Amino acid sequence: MSLDDPGTLAEAARAVKERRISSWELTTAALHRAKTRQDRLNAFIEIEEEAALSAARRADDALARGEPLGPLHGVPLAHKDMYDRKGFVTGCGSKIRANHVAPETSTVMQRLETAGAISIGRLNMSEFAMGPTGHNAHHGRALNPIDPAYITGGSSSGSGSAVGGGVVLAALGSDTGGSIRLPAACCGVVGIKPTQGRVSRHGVMPLSFSQDCVGPLARSVDDAYLLLHSISGPDDRDTTCAQAAPPEALTDDLSALRIGILRGLFETGVEDEIAVALGTVSRVLAGDVASLQDAPGMDLPAIAELANVVAMAEAGTVHFDWMRERPEDYGPQIRMRLSQSPAIPAPIYLRALQIRATMLQAFLQNGFGENDVLIAPVMPFLPPLSSDVDIGASPKMNTVVSAMTSFTRPFSFLGLPVVTLPVAASANGLPIAIQIIARPWREDLAASVARHLERVLALPAFAPPSTHRSAA
Amino acid sequence: MSLDDPGTLAEAARAVKERRISSWELTTAALHRAKTRQDRLNAFIEIEEEAALSAARRADDALARGEPLGPLHGVPLAHKDMYDRKGFVTGCGSKIRANHVAPETSTVMQRLETAGAISIGRLNMSEFAMGPTGHNAHHGRALNPIDPAYITGGSSSGSGSAVGGGVVLAALGSDTGGSIRLPAACCGVVGIKPTQGRVSRHGVMPLSFSQDCVGPLARSVDDAYLLLHSISGPDDRDTTCAQAAPPEALTDDLSALRIGILRGLFETGVEDEIAVALGTVSRVLAGDVASLQDAPGMDLPAIAELANVVAMAEAGTVHFDWMRERPEDYGPQIRMRLSQSPAIPAPIYLRALQIRATMLQAFLQNGFGENDVLIAPVMPFLPPLSSDVDIGASPKMNTVVSAMTSFTRPFSFLGLPVVTLPVAASANGLPIAIQIIARPWREDLAASVARHLERVLALPAFAPPSTHRSAA
Repeated sequence: MSLDDPGTLAEAARAVKERRISSWELTTAALHRAKTRQDRLNAFIEIEEEAALSAARRADDALARGEPLGPLHGVPLAHKDMYDRKGFVTGCGSKIRANHVAPETSTVMQRLETAGAISIGRLNMSEFAMGPTGHNAHHGRALNPIDPAYITGGSSSGSGSAVGGGVVLAALGSDTGGSIRLPAACCGVVGIKPTQGRVSRHGVMPLSFSQDCVGPLARSVDDAYLLLHSISGPDDRDTTCAQAAPPEALTDDLSALRIGILRGLFETGVEDEIAVALGTVSRVLAGDVASLQDAPGMDLPAIAELANVVAMAEAGTVHFDWMRERPEDYGPQIRMRLSQSPAIPAPIYLRALQIRATMLQAFLQNGFGENDVLIAPVMPFLPPLSSDVDIGASPKMNTVVSAMTSFTRPFSFLGLPVVTLPVAASANGLPIAIQIIARPWREDLAASVARHLERVLALPAFAPPSTHRSAA
Repeated sequence: MSLDDPGTLAEAARAVKERRISSWELTTAALHRAKTRQDRLNAFIEIEEEAALSAARRADDALARGEPLGPLHGVPLAHKDMYDRKGFVTGCGSKIRANHVAPETSTVMQRLETAGAISIGRLNMSEFAMGPTGHNAHHGRALNPIDPAYITGGSSSGSGSAVGGGVVLAALGSDTGGSIRLPAACCGVVGIKPTQGRVSRHGVMPLSFSQDCVGPLARSVDDAYLLLHSISGPDDRDTTCAQAAPPEALTDDLSALRIGILRGLFETGVEDEIAVALGTVSRVLAGDVASLQDAPGMDLPAIAELANVVAMAEAGTVHFDWMRERPEDYGPQIRMRLSQSPAIPAPIYLRALQIRATMLQAFLQNGFGENDVLIAPVMPFLPPLSSDVDIGASPKMNTVVSAMTSFTRPFSFLGLPVVTLPVAASANGLPIAIQIIARPWREDLAASVARHLERVLALPAFAPPSTHRSAA
């Protein structure tokens, strides 16, 4: 653990606690990385240097006074620009909310503060969290830390870029149809979309209230899981937040676990390199688990379409007044997508929600079968070149959005927890990632499998700070 | 109290308990009335003679064995054809569900059984509870007990007809936009639409899950309130049912009560006789309450429109599959109305629901002002002739439906409790009724005002069994 490589979140917090390094030093180093890499990554919408340094000083003072310390005490993080903090701007990657000062602090940010974490700034994101490519008409896109010609994925684009680019160890993102999983996959980091209802959304910008989830992106499974743990749990201020026990501890023993591979799931199939990576994952796991078999196909494209209907109907509601009063202040793609939502008939929307529970039951029974977790690709293709999917409001828009989210949306609709993990590098050096899907509330099983794979595969970090390819 | 005039529910139950009359005798008499008045009223879809008599025998046996008795022990009632009872048909006034046998018993029917009540049959209703006039393409309309040329109002048409026609002392109805209040008003009986969430809807045919309420129609305020009390309260089987304390006891002391009259509320105004009746009510109450004043106008037509949007969107969802698979099995008016619901955009529906809480707050503050209860008309006109509003699926349909429900729908959208009471007779002998509207959970205040008016005005029953006008 050093200023250049602070190891894991737990190691960094321990170093602060044992006074081997101060929070001020850690935070100053993180701010330095944020600033010097901003041209290369465009990960930040705002670097909040002054607030971060004074929070770091308070953390060091608390330590000096012997106050009780949280598990993230003094560790610098940064988060997607959509979690309210009293007196700070929450801009949501938009023009419309660019100067909106939050009246109170969101539950997730309050819990991270209680855990002792420092926030060094607001991370870039797709405007209002809409957009799987990560493009942003107002702030420019965040750049892929591995190769800037490629997309970061979205909507948590800055979270993928800042974590993958080594600026911070972890960041919060949000996932409505893939918005944590896609940037984690494209930027070669770990992402966790929790079970629907595990994490409070009080003070969090809404997009689709039936599917929005807050979760972490991090450089390791342990780090992501620690962050998830810190933000989980019931919240009086969010009635949609479940009375669920905290996520259970991870285990190294997978010998009782039954794993299904969702391989031939989608009519369109996946690119060859992804199929090969899935095969490698299967071989690597086979000896360590109780069983590993191909899972039966399910009609996931239909579920993805239901997810989209619900997402767009609800997004159209959230943006109802602004779309009427100031449509010109949206970027072209977001405006075009939102303008489609009134075409969704109310009974279709309600019908989709009504059959959600039935479809979850069917998927738990037939999709999982006897398996405890399922493994599936994140996308049907490798991370695309930005130039190939910078489609704005063109006629290709709906096709690109659907294709990119076809593997992620179904699990949003079903509300299932998913851990995303890079498992291989493609021939062009980009990450190939998988989704590890568990039954509701069993993030621990998905994350235990992910940690096992992480150890066995021992992939190098995809974008260690010193080895970025230069911008094309 | 006699077989021909069993007085009140409480008196009838007391007579059974004190063995002055048996449940079998009471039930036989009610069945006799039901059968002999069926040609005149068409109030029943099915008279369940055998089941009713054996339930009455069981009630008498329980009494003989000295078992504990509920407050309605042995008293015959009948209910709208939409409350499930295990092994019995719930037909919903439709062709589609005409032979549907319920797999379990609804909470409201279970509670009435626990209270000791007997059910003598399934009452007529507008098809699937859609239709404020009470017409029914499959079963024919229930007839107004005062004059069969006039409508009963709907959708609880049979409940209004059977109670007004003296067949039973009380009946359950349901109210989504006026379906208890309109037939109570047209048939000259008391109706209570409870606070949204006070009464369980488990096992009750849904129409608009955001607005559906189950409540009583009865010949007196006390009877209606006793029935409300019997069916109220939390229900594990209905998560939308509130954890509310039971309705409080009625009071004779109105001296602290502040009453507002919603008089000049609607642009269209009301017919002269209704305005006169409102004036009488004001004069009668003035000396007995703390204050009585005109309440400020509110934009209730806008609220009525929101109520309609929500109702039609949700009804279109409930009937989604049947409308696709067997539209020809709906009556023309219901089919036409349901066919309009896919034209409601999902964001408009969701927006309407979103602003519901805000509008309720605004109404509690500005609509009620300092008042505890509000008094308003039920309809802008007297009960219409059936021939004037038998509009089927004609172009007049939406206009008639809107006009009839313009005064009732707003309080459905706001979820407020309303007691409907006849307060005068028009020149042509038909009832003129008012709505007494209270703040949420204060049915007791509205019903206390209603009982006071009932005593002071001392109106004769509108359609005592022996004095029906004959069918035209």
